[in-house]
Amino acid sequence: MQIKDLGEFGVIDLLTRMVIDQRAGPGNGQSFSFNITVDNGDDTAAWSPGPNTINELFTTDTMVEGVHFTRETTPWQDLGWKSVASNISDVAAMGGLPNYALVTLGLPPETEVSDLESLYEGMLQVSNEYGLAIVGGDIVRSPVVFITVALTGVMQGQPLLRTGARPGDLVAVTGYLGSSGGGLKLMLAGRSEDGEAADYLRESHRRPRPAIAAGQSLAEAGITTAMDVSDGMVGDLSKLCWASGVSGKIFADRLPVHPFLSSRFPEDCVELALGGGEDYVLLFTGRPAKVNHVVSGLSGGAAVIGELSEGEPGKIKVVDSQGKEIPAGKWGWDHFGPAQN
Amino acid sequence: MQIKDLGEFGVIDLLTRMVIDQRAGPGNGQSFSFNITVDNGDDTAAWSPGPNTINELFTTDTMVEGVHFTRETTPWQDLGWKSVASNISDVAAMGGLPNYALVTLGLPPETEVSDLESLYEGMLQVSNEYGLAIVGGDIVRSPVVFITVALTGVMQGQPLLRTGARPGDLVAVTGYLGSSGGGLKLMLAGRSEDGEAADYLRESHRRPRPAIAAGQSLAEAGITTAMDVSDGMVGDLSKLCWASGVSGKIFADRLPVHPFLSSRFPEDCVELALGGGEDYVLLFTGRPAKVNHVVSGLSGGAAVIGELSEGEPGKIKVVDSQGKEIPAGKWGWDHFGPAQN
Repeated sequence: MQIKDLGEFGVIDLLTRMVIDQRAGPGNGQSFSFNITVDNGDDTAAWSPGPNTINELFTTDTMVEGVHFTRETTPWQDLGWKSVASNISDVAAMGGLPNYALVTLGLPPETEVSDLESLYEGMLQVSNEYGLAIVGGDIVRSPVVFITVALTGVMQGQPLLRTGARPGDLVAVTGYLGSSGGGLKLMLAGRSEDGEAADYLRESHRRPRPAIAAGQSLAEAGITTAMDVSDGMVGDLSKLCWASGVSGKIFADRLPVHPFLSSRFPEDCVELALGGGEDYVLLFTGRPAKVNHVVSGLSGGAAVIGELSEGEPGKIKVVDSQGKEIPAGKWGWDHFGPAQN
Repeated sequence: MQIKDLGEFGVIDLLTRMVIDQRAGPGNGQSFSFNITVDNGDDTAAWSPGPNTINELFTTDTMVEGVHFTRETTPWQDLGWKSVASNISDVAAMGGLPNYALVTLGLPPETEVSDLESLYEGMLQVSNEYGLAIVGGDIVRSPVVFITVALTGVMQGQPLLRTGARPGDLVAVTGYLGSSGGGLKLMLAGRSEDGEAADYLRESHRRPRPAIAAGQSLAEAGITTAMDVSDGMVGDLSKLCWASGVSGKIFADRLPVHPFLSSRFPEDCVELALGGGEDYVLLFTGRPAKVNHVVSGLSGGAAVIGELSEGEPGKIKVVDSQGKEIPAGKWGWDHFGPAQN
């Protein structure tokens, strides 16, 4: 069997089981007496270095040329920004603050030095904005460009997990959905388009802003379940629901779509909001009264978009304003499944 | 200009300068008030979370198919072992202990699930042996196999640095050199060869054992300058000397070569010891009395192999038993320089 037959979820599940089984094996009690507070399977790992102290967070994320980006639609500087931003977003999804980063670059020997400088400029811009320090890394020769960033962070209090969502919980997001996907769509269309809407959409795709402040607000407000929207909202909510053992329902008419997205793409904006990816807002769940209260205190497109129920873990249904199910589209992203159009 | 023209040192130097310049820029005082104790350019980064506490270590290392390994000479299980071991070795070179790891896999969709399981078995074997926990990672589609491991560690006391070596210092290693290179040479020759020597050499290449215990002994003995031998001894010593602003001289007749290596490869063993790579012993320097004392307390091939002097930073001369210079061979490894034969 090949990993494309198993799919991304299947592969992750297999490896996680191997890791956990091995750790519980005989003779490992001594070595693995760590204080792991968040293990394999969440936005970041976490551990607590001592009693009653902060949690340390640890995450990594990779971008591969031809899979996660093409040089045609992603200038080097934006690539630098995004490769660090996606990691910051994982820390945001725990309610933490980023601190130290290592950067691994796989590059063909023919890479232009000026492109490499642009890449690092983008990395340093977002690092600067979010107060993190790049402290090292690794550079290797590779036939295909890839960028891996590993990031540590800190979290005072209980990290926001993917587990713990319950039937009856509401589902909410901390900001607009689909704007990044709209920007990518514009750029793939090729024509350079002027105007405020085009600028907003392109900027959303090129310079996503991880929701560090929103993550901290959620944690302070007592929300305990959250993750970031990186691969597409429905796919990501499915992961959260799978981790929590619940099903989800999304109300398509309640998706927070920016006016610039709905005006530029009136036909596609719902599809983009459902599956566009790279919005880097946070998805969170909780009891209705609490979620409604928290959403009212957030700005910039925060909204309640669905609810959870008992049912097949990870199954997500999208319904229209009449409660009629909208058939599944091309939402989400399986890194090893069949290529998507 | 392309990065192959700049070379690995040039690229790292450029990026390090960009990072440091940016961090010192106006307005960054607030954000970057970290307690970084070891910055870009050493085996690991390090920071101290509070006054008088331990140092936290952070490192990453990558293996790319066709660059660092081929599937012909490296079975998946060994690849797993080595990709984690090379990171453990960086922690050993600081005098620390490893604790948490994240694993990033870039894999073609056609990868066999059984190969992936073998890969993880190797990772878990070495993790188990060295008491570290894999707590997560990332899996992405890639046309070429690559494996990136990011590792945290801890260090009580002052980490061993690459800077700080002084003229007049002796250079020593904590174990045998060239055994891993000898094993690779055997495997590249293709014939499966029996016997104790062949087994030892192959095992040295396939299952290198990072020098965690030796690193701790060095730190406890007051040694302050060390690094691990990963790319080849002369190339690695050159990096250490460059970081410290000194030149080095290696005595070819004092290189610790295992009897199995010298008996199997009598002609090539010195060349393999100078530049073979992946030995994962530690190089260290210090005042003569101290280094001689420390070497006498180590087992398994530890030896004084050279001395440092004023001169062109990073320049290494190799001399024979008559003090005559041996011309530079194919020692070391530049990831972006011209291909080496």
